[in-house]
Amino acid sequence: MDRQSPRKMREVIRRGEYKGPTPGIAGGYAQANLVILPRSLAYDFLLFCQRNPKPCPILEVTDTGSFEAARTAPHSDLRTDVPKYRVYQKGELTEEVFDIKNYWTDELVSFLLGCSFTFEQALIEAGISMRHIDEGRNVPMYKTNIQCESAGVFSGPMVVSMRPIKKEQVVRAIQITSRYPSVHGAPIHIDDPKGLGIEKIDCPDFGESVTVKEGEVPVFWACGVTPQLAAAASRSPFMITHSPGHMFITDVKDNTLSIL
Amino acid sequence: MDRQSPRKMREVIRRGEYKGPTPGIAGGYAQANLVILPRSLAYDFLLFCQRNPKPCPILEVTDTGSFEAARTAPHSDLRTDVPKYRVYQKGELTEEVFDIKNYWTDELVSFLLGCSFTFEQALIEAGISMRHIDEGRNVPMYKTNIQCESAGVFSGPMVVSMRPIKKEQVVRAIQITSRYPSVHGAPIHIDDPKGLGIEKIDCPDFGESVTVKEGEVPVFWACGVTPQLAAAASRSPFMITHSPGHMFITDVKDNTLSIL
Repeated sequence: MDRQSPRKMREVIRRGEYKGPTPGIAGGYAQANLVILPRSLAYDFLLFCQRNPKPCPILEVTDTGSFEAARTAPHSDLRTDVPKYRVYQKGELTEEVFDIKNYWTDELVSFLLGCSFTFEQALIEAGISMRHIDEGRNVPMYKTNIQCESAGVFSGPMVVSMRPIKKEQVVRAIQITSRYPSVHGAPIHIDDPKGLGIEKIDCPDFGESVTVKEGEVPVFWACGVTPQLAAAASRSPFMITHSPGHMFITDVKDNTLSIL
Repeated sequence: MDRQSPRKMREVIRRGEYKGPTPGIAGGYAQANLVILPRSLAYDFLLFCQRNPKPCPILEVTDTGSFEAARTAPHSDLRTDVPKYRVYQKGELTEEVFDIKNYWTDELVSFLLGCSFTFEQALIEAGISMRHIDEGRNVPMYKTNIQCESAGVFSGPMVVSMRPIKKEQVVRAIQITSRYPSVHGAPIHIDDPKGLGIEKIDCPDFGESVTVKEGEVPVFWACGVTPQLAAAASRSPFMITHSPGHMFITDVKDNTLSIL
């Protein structure tokens, strides 16, 4: 199995031959969060993303009814090319499935949102290690006391991911991630979890906790769970997302998302 | 007349006491292009901007029916706070007016788009002079052979503005404007106008021509006329824009739009 080519990997997933998580697959290519909504909610959701670009950086919005990510992954099929999907009805998770052909209609719009895997790779290449990767865990994520700018039916708190960074590497980590605005960009907060309303750094709301060592500070980035949470809270009659960690693999090279 | 405070200047304009162009007014604060469309076209237009972020960088989209730019200029009134407006019916310019109260309905959405005045100020402060300002002209603008990504009824060529830059300052100009993605960002093309399909650099499609001196190269940035042209070409039943050079003055400091 060629795990390095995004196109070939999507074909493998399409044939149902890979249903697992995607970190480490097709290294160097951007992976995306997926949110699929009815056209009737697409304007409000697009506006929500526009008003909250740090948690909701958009890589692509498909034409209504099209299941091809024509701009970021030509010849892809968004109904089959994600290893695992979550189906929501009225905001409640009702099913996890491996393809969504049975759910597809011409009234659906797909949103592909940037994912932190891209900037993590750039940080690792700069010698800044990622604790959750070293400890084999999901990155810890927290609801904050920062309210997103609402748009129509969409509102909710900003969710952040946390990575412990050595004090002497914090400046470099800010510089590097600032260059990637389309995958969450610079951190939104450094140290002092209480300043974000986070009482217990060991008890993340999503993902798993990681060790913060002596000489490190927790650094917080806006997180792509934010729009999913806002979409679920809207109790949209219908929504499909990827399953956590089971992302859509694009043909976009991570490096091309750097603006400087 | 206090020309330095954006809020006070908007009040002066609202009272009809200033109807002129806005360059040089409220220095240090971002000025914005304005496009007002019916809600029925707002999704396609927002998507067009999302797909073409360099010519169409969005600073704010109002809630439907709201005439306050609540995020970038609290207490403003978009019906009165622009010195001069253009009204289009079915894509044809039908009127230039000083306020749009008579045209306002609860079905309108206002888009504020970043303007190159912001990055020009940053360039000037770095010792890179702006020829069109020195020669007292409008910046020259050209239709190019680059087609924008279309979205619904909106499509059209990318329009660029051109500034002659000394060869030894081109790198610095790229660095500086790269930091301002929300006001068109880095240039899209350097030198070789024919590469953009521009046959005569002395005959711009909009604005006025400027001198390109020995030792200088023409540098091209994506231009905010692009979305206006696309909106007019869509023959939208109804559209209002600012008049060229008569911008909406926000409370956003230019410097805060720099991402690095």
